Amino acid sequence: MKIVFHGANALTFFEGFETLLETPHELVTVSDTFDGAGDLEHYQTAEIIVGTHSRAEYPPTSAKLFQLPAAGYDGVHFPSLPEGCAVCNCFGHENAIAEYVMAALLARHVPLAEADRQLRQGDWHYWAGGPSGLRTELGAQSIGIVGHGHIGRTLAARALAFGMTVHVANRSPVSTPDYAATYGLADLTEMASHIDVLINTLPLSDGTAGIIGADVLNALGAEAIVMNVGRGPVIDEDALFEVLSTRRIGGAIIDTWYVYPTPDQPNPMPGHKPFHDLDNVTLTPHMSGWTNGTITRRQQAMARNVDRLARGQSLKNRVP
Amino acid sequence: MKIVFHGANALTFFEGFETLLETPHELVTVSDTFDGAGDLEHYQTAEIIVGTHSRAEYPPTSAKLFQLPAAGYDGVHFPSLPEGCAVCNCFGHENAIAEYVMAALLARHVPLAEADRQLRQGDWHYWAGGPSGLRTELGAQSIGIVGHGHIGRTLAARALAFGMTVHVANRSPVSTPDYAATYGLADLTEMASHIDVLINTLPLSDGTAGIIGADVLNALGAEAIVMNVGRGPVIDEDALFEVLSTRRIGGAIIDTWYVYPTPDQPNPMPGHKPFHDLDNVTLTPHMSGWTNGTITRRQQAMARNVDRLARGQSLKNRVP
Repeated sequence: MKIVFHGANALTFFEGFETLLETPHELVTVSDTFDGAGDLEHYQTAEIIVGTHSRAEYPPTSAKLFQLPAAGYDGVHFPSLPEGCAVCNCFGHENAIAEYVMAALLARHVPLAEADRQLRQGDWHYWAGGPSGLRTELGAQSIGIVGHGHIGRTLAARALAFGMTVHVANRSPVSTPDYAATYGLADLTEMASHIDVLINTLPLSDGTAGIIGADVLNALGAEAIVMNVGRGPVIDEDALFEVLSTRRIGGAIIDTWYVYPTPDQPNPMPGHKPFHDLDNVTLTPHMSGWTNGTITRRQQAMARNVDRLARGQSLKNRVP
Repeated sequence: MKIVFHGANALTFFEGFETLLETPHELVTVSDTFDGAGDLEHYQTAEIIVGTHSRAEYPPTSAKLFQLPAAGYDGVHFPSLPEGCAVCNCFGHENAIAEYVMAALLARHVPLAEADRQLRQGDWHYWAGGPSGLRTELGAQSIGIVGHGHIGRTLAARALAFGMTVHVANRSPVSTPDYAATYGLADLTEMASHIDVLINTLPLSDGTAGIIGADVLNALGAEAIVMNVGRGPVIDEDALFEVLSTRRIGGAIIDTWYVYPTPDQPNPMPGHKPFHDLDNVTLTPHMSGWTNGTITRRQQAMARNVDRLARGQSLKNRVP
């Protein structure tokens, strides 16, 4: 099997990958722009491509498997893939994202940095017994998770362990006795009226763009928090900026965005609107799933798919 | 029933307490130093005292129940209580403390504040795909919980939900299949050699002072973290300062201390050693259990005990 890792993102999954393979193989790395000697030829003769994107002008003519080292496949140009080429994605990021979410939510209730700063000056303000230093508890809150896939389920388990009241909205019906209520994606406004935290975990696909819009956001309470770890445009940008800039809701923690770096603009602000001017938003750069654990789990999933292809077995996580 | 709330700490549990009582009652608040008119007489004629401390020179002569609104009862002068006076403590702080612990641990893996600061400047350093922004995962770590009471059990449940490997050390044997290993308190050095995080949840009582000493701390790995949410002196102060100041271990998050404010010294540094000069320690002022949820749960527990006393029923959480 000739396996080509294409581009910088794929390259981060290269080290150690070989040791996971049972299949005889040739491994090659190729730059995003095919500017190395032989890069394009390697790419076009590869049986397996590991990468996050393909382009119509560079068709991977021999590929039997286009393996994404990621969940999102919106960067793949499907029409230019050879007939019969399978496209598979992979997950393994759900633990990382759940840790990001719980860290961000807990940080709103436990003022560690401020308490440390004060105590180093002899200020015991947060000491138990002092009414002004009294905290709130995350476990007393309710969370509304939009999407019940890998991320949604993993996050729900941790939220339940903290005693949170968990609401779930999903395209297909969800039935789990641990949840306070479940909803269809048409009922997000109803769910919003019952929760303290609204979290989007949905990808960008047919029917998800903008489904968290003004109606949903305005149904949230004055102290409610919005999070996005799915894809930015699932939450309507103008509506989100409106409820944050007018302080209609308590705040937001946004990891997935409306504007991303490009070769021409490597350091953009992440929104068309100036979210970076708001003090009630935590802005992070699409980092929630990015851990060494994610890399290891994805490497294992990809290596198993390579072995399956070599043995003529069915592949895991075919998309779309 | 004449119920006296004695002192500032008890006073934080006063508001709303009355609504929880089924028993006919008279409620009075009395200052820590008995400097209000009639304070001492109220205190001495109370059938129930709610407070965290008593003193030999002010014996509560009529008390049938000395009810602590807290877990620790080292402030009670038992010999000067009337014969037959029950002393009861209460908990309800375990959820709050578990949130503090998990918030502090997760914060070491998810650099939210730094990522936010960078992205506001157009810096996408932590973006998925960039090797230098790769995080670690808490769920990959192992935790050693010293003490398997209210706090230890509640914390263990949350750690397990994150996928952590949980070790438990306790005075009496613990047998739970979810734990990787359990130990007696004589085996803390053995446990320390297997864990990434060592957490003390033990109170200060017979045999616990200093049981986490140099031998135990030196058995930890170079990246290990120590936390204390039990009582400060359970961890030997000199030994702890030594491993932190020499950077023998990764760091510490310390909430319970060796020095506390007094009327004469309201703003002390929390150790006899200069922990406040170390940058590998998070210092917080005994705040981990201090939430509105803790107050509510303790009010309910205390009100139930008042009602039980009035009905001649057995009391909950008698100490020592």
